[in-house]
Amino acid sequence: MSALSPAQARRHIRSGDWSVTTAGLANGFAQTNLVAIPAAFADDFLRFCMANRACCPILDVTQPGDPIPHSLGKGIDLRTDLPRYRVYIDGLMSEEVTDVSAFWRDDLVSFSIGCSFSFEEALLADGVPLRHVEQGSVVPMYRSTIPLVASGPFGGSAVVSMRPMPPAAAIRAIQITSDMPSVHGAPLHIARPDLIGIDDLMQPDFGDPPTMEENDIAVFWGCGVTPQAALMSARIPFALTHAPGYMLITDIPNHKLKYR
Amino acid sequence: MSALSPAQARRHIRSGDWSVTTAGLANGFAQTNLVAIPAAFADDFLRFCMANRACCPILDVTQPGDPIPHSLGKGIDLRTDLPRYRVYIDGLMSEEVTDVSAFWRDDLVSFSIGCSFSFEEALLADGVPLRHVEQGSVVPMYRSTIPLVASGPFGGSAVVSMRPMPPAAAIRAIQITSDMPSVHGAPLHIARPDLIGIDDLMQPDFGDPPTMEENDIAVFWGCGVTPQAALMSARIPFALTHAPGYMLITDIPNHKLKYR
Repeated sequence: MSALSPAQARRHIRSGDWSVTTAGLANGFAQTNLVAIPAAFADDFLRFCMANRACCPILDVTQPGDPIPHSLGKGIDLRTDLPRYRVYIDGLMSEEVTDVSAFWRDDLVSFSIGCSFSFEEALLADGVPLRHVEQGSVVPMYRSTIPLVASGPFGGSAVVSMRPMPPAAAIRAIQITSDMPSVHGAPLHIARPDLIGIDDLMQPDFGDPPTMEENDIAVFWGCGVTPQAALMSARIPFALTHAPGYMLITDIPNHKLKYR
Repeated sequence: MSALSPAQARRHIRSGDWSVTTAGLANGFAQTNLVAIPAAFADDFLRFCMANRACCPILDVTQPGDPIPHSLGKGIDLRTDLPRYRVYIDGLMSEEVTDVSAFWRDDLVSFSIGCSFSFEEALLADGVPLRHVEQGSVVPMYRSTIPLVASGPFGGSAVVSMRPMPPAAAIRAIQITSDMPSVHGAPLHIARPDLIGIDDLMQPDFGDPPTMEENDIAVFWGCGVTPQAALMSARIPFALTHAPGYMLITDIPNHKLKYR
């Protein structure tokens, strides 16, 4: 399944054959998080994302009502081509479904948001060790005190993901991810969790506790959970999102995200 | 004196009017360290520098006997245009002079080596704090355990310079200096002095002890003292170098060192 083309993988997903996590599917192609909200909130959310790009890097935004993310590939329909979605009412999750055609509205604006899978592929290809990949666990994520720029009802502080690695690998990881701003870009913080309100690395707010090797330092990136958290705390009346781990597979090769 | 053109500054230096440190002279233009050694050792030294570029980034290398660094500007003569030189015999300094015309040999190959002044200007322009500049002290330098690639009689371990700064500034400094490989490039190490054999940051091997502010981490770059140290421990029969702080002012604007 890792060798499928993005179009092949999407066809299986759209047909309802598959409701599997997209991790490891159609390797080498960018996957995106989905946020679809009513147009009345979309301008505030767009400005929120632009002002906090390290956490919320937008790869595509649609016109109201249009379910097609034109810049992400051919024949993609955001209503059917993700394996699993969440429906939010007034900031609370109401259900998880495998198709949102029945929930679609003519005023929905859809944001496709870059994902760390893309930069992790670049790091691994360069020999940077990723402990959570080695161990098959979920990357640890933390609510930090790094403030976000607020926009309308959206604000709060950044959620960060953390990858432990030796100092020389951290320098290399900063170089590699700096060139990939549309998939979170450079780290937001390194080496001193205490300075961003993280008292205990072993107690992440999301994901699994990390394994720190003796020579590792902590490297923190802006995390795609941030826009989801902002969306929930804004308690807007209606939103559709992907379910965590069940993303859109785009036609964009990860290597094309360099400088983009 | 900071507003002089490089050619004006070199003219004063060549005439013997000035034997002052070049720090702060002709601001905005790259300065280079000098190593001139007999051709019999030059190939080994060139390979040593190429294999350890973070410590020994070469901006110009001459043909044997030619005192003109053709790529660094117009009308430069390496025998007269630095304010102060050191003469080494068998690895030991024999004297300091302001002109090496009397010591010149037809077999000398001259290496002009990039200097951290260039990247420090880029860091300051970007708002990265440099504690030693704020305090008017000399950047602290340490003999590390980071091994160098040996070539002929040249080898040993890297000398590193250290600049303390907050984590977000360190990430920015890594980005900025990564694009300037001919003036040491990206840091070699961050955040954990113990991992490179430095027990006490307050006891540098060269320069002044640093001031670490509460939120600072240590950021280590390869240092131009490295080739000098390798030269001395190789005990080659004859060498000319600049005296520390008394460098060649080139015609190359620092901003042109980006990607170079």
